[in-house]
Amino acid sequence: MRPNRMLILAAALATFITGCAQRPLHSWHDGPAKSSILGFVDQVSDPASPHHVPRDERIAVFDNDGTLWAEQPAYFQLLFAIDRVKQLAPQHPDWNHTEPFKSVLEGDTHALAAQGEHAVAQLIAQTHAVMTTDEFQSTVRDWLRTARHPQLNRPYTQCVYQPMLELLDHLRARGFKTYIVSGGGIEFLRVFAQELYGIPPEQVIGSSGKVTLEMRNGAPVLIKQPQISFIDDKAGKPIAINLHIGRRPIIAVGNSDGDLPMLQWTDAGDRPSLCMLVHHDDPDREWAYDRHSHIGQLDEALDAASANDWTIISMRRDWTLIFPRP
Amino acid sequence: MRPNRMLILAAALATFITGCAQRPLHSWHDGPAKSSILGFVDQVSDPASPHHVPRDERIAVFDNDGTLWAEQPAYFQLLFAIDRVKQLAPQHPDWNHTEPFKSVLEGDTHALAAQGEHAVAQLIAQTHAVMTTDEFQSTVRDWLRTARHPQLNRPYTQCVYQPMLELLDHLRARGFKTYIVSGGGIEFLRVFAQELYGIPPEQVIGSSGKVTLEMRNGAPVLIKQPQISFIDDKAGKPIAINLHIGRRPIIAVGNSDGDLPMLQWTDAGDRPSLCMLVHHDDPDREWAYDRHSHIGQLDEALDAASANDWTIISMRRDWTLIFPRP
Repeated sequence: MRPNRMLILAAALATFITGCAQRPLHSWHDGPAKSSILGFVDQVSDPASPHHVPRDERIAVFDNDGTLWAEQPAYFQLLFAIDRVKQLAPQHPDWNHTEPFKSVLEGDTHALAAQGEHAVAQLIAQTHAVMTTDEFQSTVRDWLRTARHPQLNRPYTQCVYQPMLELLDHLRARGFKTYIVSGGGIEFLRVFAQELYGIPPEQVIGSSGKVTLEMRNGAPVLIKQPQISFIDDKAGKPIAINLHIGRRPIIAVGNSDGDLPMLQWTDAGDRPSLCMLVHHDDPDREWAYDRHSHIGQLDEALDAASANDWTIISMRRDWTLIFPRP
Repeated sequence: MRPNRMLILAAALATFITGCAQRPLHSWHDGPAKSSILGFVDQVSDPASPHHVPRDERIAVFDNDGTLWAEQPAYFQLLFAIDRVKQLAPQHPDWNHTEPFKSVLEGDTHALAAQGEHAVAQLIAQTHAVMTTDEFQSTVRDWLRTARHPQLNRPYTQCVYQPMLELLDHLRARGFKTYIVSGGGIEFLRVFAQELYGIPPEQVIGSSGKVTLEMRNGAPVLIKQPQISFIDDKAGKPIAINLHIGRRPIIAVGNSDGDLPMLQWTDAGDRPSLCMLVHHDDPDREWAYDRHSHIGQLDEALDAASANDWTIISMRRDWTLIFPRP
């Protein structure tokens, strides 16, 4: 091939690549979900539109587990707690014969699951406290750097949904403030929210534990305590949105019944709003689960979506790829 | 006077007025407080400075009562509650012989004060609940529109400190995100924070009561309940900053011992920081109180300021005027 032909080809390729990068939602198939997003965002951000919403009021809230990143075979924060129990076990010989640690150390996930929420709370308490907020952050950071998803065989930070990253970018380009409103721990989420999603710590809302202030060598430190103080799920989501943001969102995106009150709260505002549910219906590329799942159950919210004309995002039909290319 | 002279004078006056408006901190006397502010802000916002702090990390937190607006003869939110008791009294005949309402209705502030914090909590509970968050906001908005400060004889919204408004403006012009971190109620503060201080609801942190979600006519509403859930004072301030912002401030401004942990937390960070205390030492133009005051006691924090070389803002010496000109 002559050099000038190569140059022309390279230029064409560059144009194509740039075009892809600049086209919003380029990992989304053309279809009802993509067009309802683009249409809504155009309307509210166009000062000439009757549906225009001032920039300050363009608040978009996103659930995290199952909405921005995967949540199977278990919430990643629980997988972190399990890894942490294994790591700390040598310092706690009693864990070999005390539940729920025994089941974790024996790798018996069925026995662990049978112990229910109380066991999970105990694991979280033992692995997320008692330590300073800084110490907790470095622990999570270290884990994220090395741990890999057991089935997807990639770092957890690569288990985010590429199409949602593009949605976040598109919203911010149109003046939206994007928030996470997750049942996950607020301090856990903040370790990666900026780097992964471009969402700064002050726009992360989550469940939280009790924190106390102590003086150490004349300087104050914040200590995470084992007691849970707020569960950011179900009714907790609009309550936390009201507490942290003090404005009603105009976009809400979730994937489970735990997100239903947040979507209803968004929908009930005076301004135009867009409520969306990610539907896990892609067993080949991700997972398929809804009404009968223990994780991310989507039942009542699915009915509410069809009753209220909310947008269903089908992973199978709407997304050209699920996870970022390595 | 000949017209062209008038034109020249008018032009000169316009230049002078514009000059005043553009000079930062124009209601501050030249002195150590003003120069420590200007110097610090220049350093952290100058990319060429060794003390440069990235824009995202330029977080400034302000106490409200006694720091951004006056707090004498009592916290304005308590004065709101008292006015509200008087307004609601006809619907509560039992209040005429039940404390603390009886003292309020008889205007007996000494008897009220003698009943202590429990009485205040009861007044707040009765006047801040049970109602929707929207209903509460309109109640506060109506009050602010009509109520006047009993001694300063001006609307409460005109009892803000003009020099602090200029400080907030100057910080924002240099890329700071400005937050209120107040012992006052978060929902109360948010009614006026944007208009008065240019601080949006999501940058307001305060004490809060329990809130529940209810469905009314198929739509969710948030109901303020009488129980207090968080007191944003003393150790509560750094704890709330950590919960809501998730970053350590580099500027903290307060006026009382309740602000001490917030200033210590700011001071203990790795980055350069500026901690300041407003000292109420101007009995002619405002009030004079510190170590022995029941409201806004400034004792331990005053000692900490001199031990740690924090900046004291003297209302008498540092401010050319206190309140905005009507």
